[in-house]
Amino acid sequence: MSDLPASVRITEEGPREGFQIATTPVPTADKIALIDALSATGAPRIQVASFVSPKRVPGWADADAVVAGFAPKPGVTYTALWFNPQGLQRALAFKDRLAVYGSITVAASEAFSLKNLNRDRAGQIAAQRENVAEHLAAGVPVSRVSVQAAFGCNFAGDIAPAQAIAAVADAMGLAQETGCAIERISLADTMGWANPLLIERVVGAVRSRWPEQKVSLHLHDTRGLGIANALAGLRMGVADFDAAVGGAGGCPFAGHPGAPGNIATEELVMLCEEMGIATGIDIDALIAAGHLAERVLGRTLPSALLRGGSLTAFRAKARAA
Amino acid sequence: MSDLPASVRITEEGPREGFQIATTPVPTADKIALIDALSATGAPRIQVASFVSPKRVPGWADADAVVAGFAPKPGVTYTALWFNPQGLQRALAFKDRLAVYGSITVAASEAFSLKNLNRDRAGQIAAQRENVAEHLAAGVPVSRVSVQAAFGCNFAGDIAPAQAIAAVADAMGLAQETGCAIERISLADTMGWANPLLIERVVGAVRSRWPEQKVSLHLHDTRGLGIANALAGLRMGVADFDAAVGGAGGCPFAGHPGAPGNIATEELVMLCEEMGIATGIDIDALIAAGHLAERVLGRTLPSALLRGGSLTAFRAKARAA
Repeated sequence: MSDLPASVRITEEGPREGFQIATTPVPTADKIALIDALSATGAPRIQVASFVSPKRVPGWADADAVVAGFAPKPGVTYTALWFNPQGLQRALAFKDRLAVYGSITVAASEAFSLKNLNRDRAGQIAAQRENVAEHLAAGVPVSRVSVQAAFGCNFAGDIAPAQAIAAVADAMGLAQETGCAIERISLADTMGWANPLLIERVVGAVRSRWPEQKVSLHLHDTRGLGIANALAGLRMGVADFDAAVGGAGGCPFAGHPGAPGNIATEELVMLCEEMGIATGIDIDALIAAGHLAERVLGRTLPSALLRGGSLTAFRAKARAA
Repeated sequence: MSDLPASVRITEEGPREGFQIATTPVPTADKIALIDALSATGAPRIQVASFVSPKRVPGWADADAVVAGFAPKPGVTYTALWFNPQGLQRALAFKDRLAVYGSITVAASEAFSLKNLNRDRAGQIAAQRENVAEHLAAGVPVSRVSVQAAFGCNFAGDIAPAQAIAAVADAMGLAQETGCAIERISLADTMGWANPLLIERVVGAVRSRWPEQKVSLHLHDTRGLGIANALAGLRMGVADFDAAVGGAGGCPFAGHPGAPGNIATEELVMLCEEMGIATGIDIDALIAAGHLAERVLGRTLPSALLRGGSLTAFRAKARAA
């Protein structure tokens, strides 16, 4: 009936995404407590911090302390985010607890690139060439291509599939030029413009042109279609997703304050597990972590499942009746 | 690629569903204002009231005044809900402004039927036999079969597709026995248990067994999968959906207070229109009606799209740039 994968790998980005846009300061210990709670859910990968300028993202001024403080759980991969050599060096100080690898990051929308990365399309590639060189010089592999605004943009409007493919091609060309072995192409719906047919078109085009690559989806639920878009990805065989517990997050540079953020990890887990797709994640532990995230962030998160609750207790009660 | 319909018919149930569970009294004039705002969105069908006992559903004690007061818009079909002869008579008093037709309503879950309808499966059919007779005696056609809890139940747990089909068969048998010409089978995920594969299985089984019937889906977003389930329905060719502006609503007898309600009409419209499926509804007028619904109900509704906003203004700005 479809290409549904047997299992998926979800990268939990709640800590990095959630604290990045926190409007009130969150104590370092609370950030660590949330990461440790997420480690206990069975999540295979957790993005724990962003090594960015505290001037640009005040919520991550304590990234080093957070990464030093959480309790790594064996078998879980921890990642972080950075955008410049200073960030890379901060990450490398923790290479015993973080998976440190580089990405070639471009935006399918030139307008968004200008707003978010301060560069036009040619400038993006030039900057990424430097970025790759810095990683390789530090002995860090560059194994991922990441395309922001791959499905549409608040500044540029609709993004045609051909534009998204051109952005991937730019990045793949740079990888070839610099001898980087790319393993994964990540497509981000940074501002919530995707719909299921567009997901099919873009993922299909990427898979056709780069069949040896794994495709990863980073979806936002800005307009309520996030989980439907994830379903479309699953149907195309995508087995790698980013998500954020509670639906925390959102892009601080998307010109769109107040909109819902990433798809909620627990809703993605529910979608997958109910369809027989293994995630390795305990949905009830994850929902508990979502409630912790709400307490830590001091706000109600957009996830419906945090309100509705899982089916586990209802099923147990029905079996016992 | 799929059976996506060219257009869908959405029944806006926000007024009926939303005021049914309102925790503070809403003035009659505000209910009417919301209905009139919804009439202006292009919605083809609006369920405006519930003629139920004010003791059971206090929020609809003023149903008659609301139905007398709204301004019918030519071309829009207005419906209401009732469960007994008193309700039918109240509806018939407004047959100049309401489409009055009967339904045979059963629940796939016996446990839910006991809670919500106070009857077991045999009792449901006996009661529906009386219900049909009352409608036919009043000269009102019975043209719809409606199955509650068709995909799962907070009291009974999982509902196998065969159980849902058995419930439809019970109702269709009664229709045949009483000479009712059924045109539509409505399947309700009353408590938010469905997933896309289950939608496919149940809708597929219904379509195979009753190919002459239209299938309608009434989905709740209790656990965040509502729009993904709607997508699964669209893929199966379903072209008839209920939804509630803002995601208002929820079942007062589902044993589940605080959970999100029906799928949000504006998110369903967004899903459809972005995929080229016509709804006839102006999404920006509908979002404005959603904000009105929030003011009238005095609470933030769960719809992500009410926060994120439509793509219309972004597209216009991008075109102008």
